[in-house]
Amino acid sequence: MSKSDFLSTGDLSPAALGQLVDLAARLKAGEDGGRLEGKTLGLVFFNPSLRTRVSFAVAMRQLGGHVTNLDVGQATWAIETRDGVVMDGDRPEHLREAAAVLSRYVDGLGVRAFGQGQCWMDDRADSVLQGFARHAAVPVINLESAVWHPCQALADILTWRELGLKRGSPIVLTWTYHPRALPMAVPNSVVLAAAQFGARMTVLRPPEFALDRELVTQAGAVADRTGGSLVETHDRNCLAGARVVYAKSWGSLQAYGTPETEAALRGRYQDWKVTQEWMNRTNEGAFMHCLPVRRNVVVSDEVLDSAASAIVQQAENRLHVQKALLLKLLGVSP
Amino acid sequence: MSKSDFLSTGDLSPAALGQLVDLAARLKAGEDGGRLEGKTLGLVFFNPSLRTRVSFAVAMRQLGGHVTNLDVGQATWAIETRDGVVMDGDRPEHLREAAAVLSRYVDGLGVRAFGQGQCWMDDRADSVLQGFARHAAVPVINLESAVWHPCQALADILTWRELGLKRGSPIVLTWTYHPRALPMAVPNSVVLAAAQFGARMTVLRPPEFALDRELVTQAGAVADRTGGSLVETHDRNCLAGARVVYAKSWGSLQAYGTPETEAALRGRYQDWKVTQEWMNRTNEGAFMHCLPVRRNVVVSDEVLDSAASAIVQQAENRLHVQKALLLKLLGVSP
Amino acid sequence: MSKSDFLSTGDLSPAALGQLVDLAARLKAGEDGGRLEGKTLGLVFFNPSLRTRVSFAVAMRQLGGHVTNLDVGQATWAIETRDGVVMDGDRPEHLREAAAVLSRYVDGLGVRAFGQGQCWMDDRADSVLQGFARHAAVPVINLESAVWHPCQALADILTWRELGLKRGSPIVLTWTYHPRALPMAVPNSVVLAAAQFGARMTVLRPPEFALDRELVTQAGAVADRTGGSLVETHDRNCLAGARVVYAKSWGSLQAYGTPETEAALRGRYQDWKVTQEWMNRTNEGAFMHCLPVRRNVVVSDEVLDSAASAIVQQAENRLHVQKALLLKLLGVSP
Repeated sequence: MSKSDFLSTGDLSPAALGQLVDLAARLKAGEDGGRLEGKTLGLVFFNPSLRTRVSFAVAMRQLGGHVTNLDVGQATWAIETRDGVVMDGDRPEHLREAAAVLSRYVDGLGVRAFGQGQCWMDDRADSVLQGFARHAAVPVINLESAVWHPCQALADILTWRELGLKRGSPIVLTWTYHPRALPMAVPNSVVLAAAQFGARMTVLRPPEFALDRELVTQAGAVADRTGGSLVETHDRNCLAGARVVYAKSWGSLQAYGTPETEAALRGRYQDWKVTQEWMNRTNEGAFMHCLPVRRNVVVSDEVLDSAASAIVQQAENRLHVQKALLLKLLGVSP
Repeated sequence: MSKSDFLSTGDLSPAALGQLVDLAARLKAGEDGGRLEGKTLGLVFFNPSLRTRVSFAVAMRQLGGHVTNLDVGQATWAIETRDGVVMDGDRPEHLREAAAVLSRYVDGLGVRAFGQGQCWMDDRADSVLQGFARHAAVPVINLESAVWHPCQALADILTWRELGLKRGSPIVLTWTYHPRALPMAVPNSVVLAAAQFGARMTVLRPPEFALDRELVTQAGAVADRTGGSLVETHDRNCLAGARVVYAKSWGSLQAYGTPETEAALRGRYQDWKVTQEWMNRTNEGAFMHCLPVRRNVVVSDEVLDSAASAIVQQAENRLHVQKALLLKLLGVSP
Repeated sequence: MSKSDFLSTGDLSPAALGQLVDLAARLKAGEDGGRLEGKTLGLVFFNPSLRTRVSFAVAMRQLGGHVTNLDVGQATWAIETRDGVVMDGDRPEHLREAAAVLSRYVDGLGVRAFGQGQCWMDDRADSVLQGFARHAAVPVINLESAVWHPCQALADILTWRELGLKRGSPIVLTWTYHPRALPMAVPNSVVLAAAQFGARMTVLRPPEFALDRELVTQAGAVADRTGGSLVETHDRNCLAGARVVYAKSWGSLQAYGTPETEAALRGRYQDWKVTQEWMNRTNEGAFMHCLPVRRNVVVSDEVLDSAASAIVQQAENRLHVQKALLLKLLGVSP
């Protein structure tokens, strides 16, 4: 019996994605979408979490099930993720056993495993997430990997709908300054989700902060098919007419794994902070961010606390889209 | 729709407090006080916990709901609590977002946030707890802040009742030695609760270990209205006739935030340890402490393991008073 | 009212142990063995856990109850376990209070407390586990102590049965190399369980890695009564005919608490790794290990990923035997 994983929104066609978000909207409106009575979802965290941790716990409980958390390296053993190694170091447990054994206890597994930030080609392989998907016998949900954060993308699509966006609506995903080189999973996922949604997506970023070329090319191809578009620019004039300004920082792929070089690149752009002046250039655009967000670094208090800020709505939508996803992945097919 | 928080027993009138403890007593006796089916309480811990963590989990489950825990800085992001700051340090998440987002997932929030121990005027503002109360859309329960530990106080009132104490009964809250300068939340709460209960409360302490003057004045004013009283002394003769000896250590406000100076003040009073000799001077008094307690530093094994020790009963009562509180705050009004 | 603890399989007669594993097998086959509706099991972890943590959570939920976890020294206070001490160090809570208070909240307690690895005579007293058993008013389950891991042993017995083993079947428990001196709880428990099961158990180990003499003598006496046997050897010819090769590393009791000396003893035996060549010498033997296992140190990838590997089945059986145990300890007697 084959199992369904959810590793990227790219696992679903644009139509299937639309249906999943439809279900999330109906669940949010109070419709009964089914139950997961007695089921347990195991959540494996290699990294911290607030929204993911709580929204999945509440989602499972509202559906009649439960979550069980494993915080790797804290409450549970450090996990080796590479194949074929001689395990004589500081990681006593292998992913192969962890995934196989947990599959005997739980009905699904969520995995959060950021990249190592040393080598983009390595991180791009998403080996921890992919390893769990390969060795688990139950559906695996990506709770944010080195490459993708698809549950965030689902919540964003629902939010775009609620904000009245449609195929062809203009969205600006803007890079911002941040004191550290952050992972790429959210921008990758937002770009792909916008393409699947059919948005006119502009990525506003300094020249040195391009996203992965292959992922951008793939998202562009998707956009071609859905009637959307994908362009990149460093010109803030692209804000004109935007319905959404989605802010996010990420590290430079030009200097991935070399923190000093990367910090020098990033340091030139400390003025890349979303302010009210930015928002005024849009078409009454909404402000979005995946959270956590650094106030007055990534975005001003003024914008974040304004009526244009959709961040709390966006975070709430994690709950609803994840309930839809869980019903789809763990529910009994009729 | 306004929400009810529980930040201090001072949020309730003495009469309302009495009714809440009445309900707790009835729940302890097995009465069905209502259900919180399907509700989730989020517990945000900035500090460790044993009794609070387990008693709230069991309380919610016995009422049909659940808790979800967030251990700040461990399993979840470090949280910035100051307003208006440029968040370029080591705390990626702001309390404003955490409180607002969690309010979309859970039905109530408990928050444990001790003070920083640097400046009493700062800690006295209880800014983390107050920030959650201000920015959460759901009821907030104080699980011990810099200033108050009201759930402990509720349990203590129920215990006083069970021990047969009435309005006018004499209670001694005694300072004890301890190797570290401990927070003031428990003594503050016990003094206020005793005033609300109408006890004759004596605070037995070395001269340098006065509680906050304003809080003592306020508690004294409450005692005047309830028929109780509040006096402070360093004379152990006050033990004569006491029905309860409540032991607790706390740091000196005279040297708050200057550990060496404070330790020198404290070091003079290593003989402030409750022994059987102390207990013999009382009127068959019970021994109370909020736990955790350092054996043979704060109190002798002999006293702690004697029949006069009410500490386990006191800790058990956390469960019952919290069930009453949860029903009041999260329950559907008829 | 007396309470039942489960600290070692030795707490049960061979017949009672057999009945418990019978029940586990029936539960695994889908039989309804009863419910623990509304009950809470508190799990106190002094050490990390994966299988134990998740399998107990799922076991309780499948029976209608819940677990509540306490990670000592992380989310909860560090716990002093010695009696009679002056608690002026870094452990603010005493086991006596922790056990007594938790007993007022939960219906049973699981405790994981490895030894300190300093002095075997001290660790052998299993004082943390024994302290919880003595001071808790509710049943205590050993989740792995310095001396025993009886839940693992229960799972192993069920696995032996499923593999077709019977009284008199030959099992080899083989020591293996490992980069650190590991605890003795699993080998102790496997040896005792094999004796209770009536297996012909051979402990294959280097001369310096004998198990505790008294425990071996006791297990041998049990084997005499059940029709089993227990021998020790360093000769790998014992693998001939074995139905199970159970691999496990442990530290040398000759150098307990002196890491450098112990490492020198251990270092001579880096070739003690289970390979296919070992397995080929058996009677189509199954490979077992309690997990986590260090691949290519303790056992080769080839063996671990072969059809002969029973490790996942063995880990799954933790769930079933623990459900049986929980029903026995926490269920209402008819």
